[in-house]
Amino acid sequence: MGAGFGGLQAAQKLKKAPVDVTVVDRYNHHLFQPLLYQVATAVLSPGEIATPIRSVLKGQNTTVLLAEAQSVDLQRKVLVCGGGEIAYDTLVLAAGATHSYFGHPEWSQFAPGLKTIDDARNIRERILVALEAAEREPDPARQREWLTFVIVGAGPTGVELAGALAYMTRHSLPKEYRRVDVSKARVLLLEGLPRVLNTYPEELSERARRDLENLGVEVRTGTMVTAMDDMGVSVGDTRIAARTVLWGAGVAASPLARTLGVPLDRAGRVKVEPTLHVPGHEDVFVIGDLASLLQDGKPVPGIAPAAMQMGKHVAKNIRLRLEGKPMEPFHYVDKGSFAVIGRGSAIGVLFDKVRVRGFLAWSMWLGIHLTFLVGFRNKAVVLVQWAYTYLTRRRDVRLITGLHPQKLPSMQRTLPTVPPVAKEEDAAAFPVRRAGDNEPAPLH
Amino acid sequence: MGAGFGGLQAAQKLKKAPVDVTVVDRYNHHLFQPLLYQVATAVLSPGEIATPIRSVLKGQNTTVLLAEAQSVDLQRKVLVCGGGEIAYDTLVLAAGATHSYFGHPEWSQFAPGLKTIDDARNIRERILVALEAAEREPDPARQREWLTFVIVGAGPTGVELAGALAYMTRHSLPKEYRRVDVSKARVLLLEGLPRVLNTYPEELSERARRDLENLGVEVRTGTMVTAMDDMGVSVGDTRIAARTVLWGAGVAASPLARTLGVPLDRAGRVKVEPTLHVPGHEDVFVIGDLASLLQDGKPVPGIAPAAMQMGKHVAKNIRLRLEGKPMEPFHYVDKGSFAVIGRGSAIGVLFDKVRVRGFLAWSMWLGIHLTFLVGFRNKAVVLVQWAYTYLTRRRDVRLITGLHPQKLPSMQRTLPTVPPVAKEEDAAAFPVRRAGDNEPAPLH
Repeated sequence: MGAGFGGLQAAQKLKKAPVDVTVVDRYNHHLFQPLLYQVATAVLSPGEIATPIRSVLKGQNTTVLLAEAQSVDLQRKVLVCGGGEIAYDTLVLAAGATHSYFGHPEWSQFAPGLKTIDDARNIRERILVALEAAEREPDPARQREWLTFVIVGAGPTGVELAGALAYMTRHSLPKEYRRVDVSKARVLLLEGLPRVLNTYPEELSERARRDLENLGVEVRTGTMVTAMDDMGVSVGDTRIAARTVLWGAGVAASPLARTLGVPLDRAGRVKVEPTLHVPGHEDVFVIGDLASLLQDGKPVPGIAPAAMQMGKHVAKNIRLRLEGKPMEPFHYVDKGSFAVIGRGSAIGVLFDKVRVRGFLAWSMWLGIHLTFLVGFRNKAVVLVQWAYTYLTRRRDVRLITGLHPQKLPSMQRTLPTVPPVAKEEDAAAFPVRRAGDNEPAPLH
Repeated sequence: MGAGFGGLQAAQKLKKAPVDVTVVDRYNHHLFQPLLYQVATAVLSPGEIATPIRSVLKGQNTTVLLAEAQSVDLQRKVLVCGGGEIAYDTLVLAAGATHSYFGHPEWSQFAPGLKTIDDARNIRERILVALEAAEREPDPARQREWLTFVIVGAGPTGVELAGALAYMTRHSLPKEYRRVDVSKARVLLLEGLPRVLNTYPEELSERARRDLENLGVEVRTGTMVTAMDDMGVSVGDTRIAARTVLWGAGVAASPLARTLGVPLDRAGRVKVEPTLHVPGHEDVFVIGDLASLLQDGKPVPGIAPAAMQMGKHVAKNIRLRLEGKPMEPFHYVDKGSFAVIGRGSAIGVLFDKVRVRGFLAWSMWLGIHLTFLVGFRNKAVVLVQWAYTYLTRRRDVRLITGLHPQKLPSMQRTLPTVPPVAKEEDAAAFPVRRAGDNEPAPLH
């Protein structure tokens, strides 16, 4: 149920069990979410980090259905989907997480988050359109607004986006714009807590902050956004004028959790037993970002490796239960985690002990992510793309596929009516800009 | 003006001329249109056949503006864009072509054409959603409707789409679906004229038809579509029930041509002088698919090589004009053209003489298209993708990124309410399909 890291792993590990598996997902692809920020920042194409679920589960005891799960009826043992219901004997819920705007759902229109391919395309287009708008905008103050990017939340997603944006504006793109100095773009990373990447040791947070600042990111910790509209954000009494605001802050469990009618934690996740099933319902398991589980007093983190371990474990417990044996408690093994800051810079913790940073951490991050990227073809393609990006510093997956006039009100002002000018046959141009025409009109 | 093959070539060849060039395009990327059908059929990602215009023209005497050209005012010498006007001394119009539905603009909602990246994504999603719907549909008659694909028009685009769809359904995907035999999908190619690819010699048309039929395409020439809705098409009195109809037929010049107020041909293209300028306006050139020009009694074809030659020539004429010299007439050199039918199968004509077909033509097509693909990175990535697709027959860029319930009315019927069933503890399943549950309910 749900073909993220957890659900897919569970389905794969049930391959040889005497069961019939149905995977229900509202998309037809498994998404390699840890690389989604590279789609949003024009390094990779969506198809390069997504694999059709059907391809992955081909030829095994699994039916794949494209449908949106809406609620669970524990009494009748059915999963209610858009368009109908699916009966289950055993249910594995792996519906993941969505954005949380801390009680301000209206902010979602101004500050898109990054969870799906459409999110990534949306963010990519917003960034690119802002740069195009800056190029067309003659008023320096308004140009600055288009060149100011605010990222709210300095967790891994916020840090990755901020680092990539700073690198992109400083190193990849400046030469391509003629009227605006893209390298002067401001990238602000706002975080309510006292430090960035707060799940990492303090020393690594400090290093990440330094690396971000070296890239050109303005990091502001202990800073809560109090208001937001399409012209910027407010931090208490301070106003930051910015036409592009991105959301890397709150994460909330899928609303599917609420329909279970069982105890949830503060983030809306289902409090599961150590065996990963819902209290009182041995036939309903919850894994991945949707599950809330304490281990040695610490929560199991909402990251891909934890979801995969849970998926594998739940498959084991389902088999044990079929054999009439007692289920085993899940034990999360923290092999490590990484956060990327930019080209050649990352931080990481291995086996809850070893701390790595800088180029070493970045190389390890690269290797690990290539290893886990699903599907042979994607790996080769991503490797080529990364090698190219690393060698040339270019970011070429820059697609604006529609015009969004609603996003670009100032364009209406930046293209002035050009008065007919006396013919200057010798100064023919293709098609604009007349020789000697130096008025401050923006399109000359 | 317009960053297709013609406009981009003109801008590049003016690099060293004493002029200031402005390229206006409503998208920020140059699109390698000959490979667009591979995006529509899940082989390539959009980013792999598109290059940012800014990257291509970086560091030269060119300003790139993201804006939609709306009309030309020949008297005032301005190009009117969404949001303002741009004055010109010399104008090069290279706005290309769009779809023509032969007087039935309402058909565009049922049968999308293939000109832009959004078109390709739309077609890809329609094909994939149709296969998902077929997998969920229990009624055999309705399943057949989802598995029937009609392509209207057997020009290069229609033939490429039909061939790719037939190959995809017969060889790439069948193993991935459990309830439906995707290899039974019908692919119909309808053409009003007596033969497919009618711009090619009759012998090659025949070969293309045979190759298409061998792939499984039902080719029907001399067949005019007379009506269309979201359930299929009518051909005279005959009704073809099909949930997916694609448009590869008419091409019409950009509506920009009409705003010039000069003579147009029947397809709405501007009749240009042999020097490529508009009659009576030596400062306005029209190139590419927007230009209508007869050479030795035959029209210069609306294909990429012709547009590129025109772009190059117009740059030359602009330079000659600046130097006060007479402009030279354009002479199209037909180096050849190809149409792909499927894996290992194509037809082509070289230098208006040599006819090639089969694997040889296909290999030449591959090599030529790789050579002309803009940008080093794209070439490497496309090569990897093609090698992968060729070796594995897989098509993995299969993204459905949104749910489109409006397209899937039958889904509402296919997911029945499952009545509560007596507990069968031993036959636990994950999560659906109970052992021994063999009623014709579709989700069991």
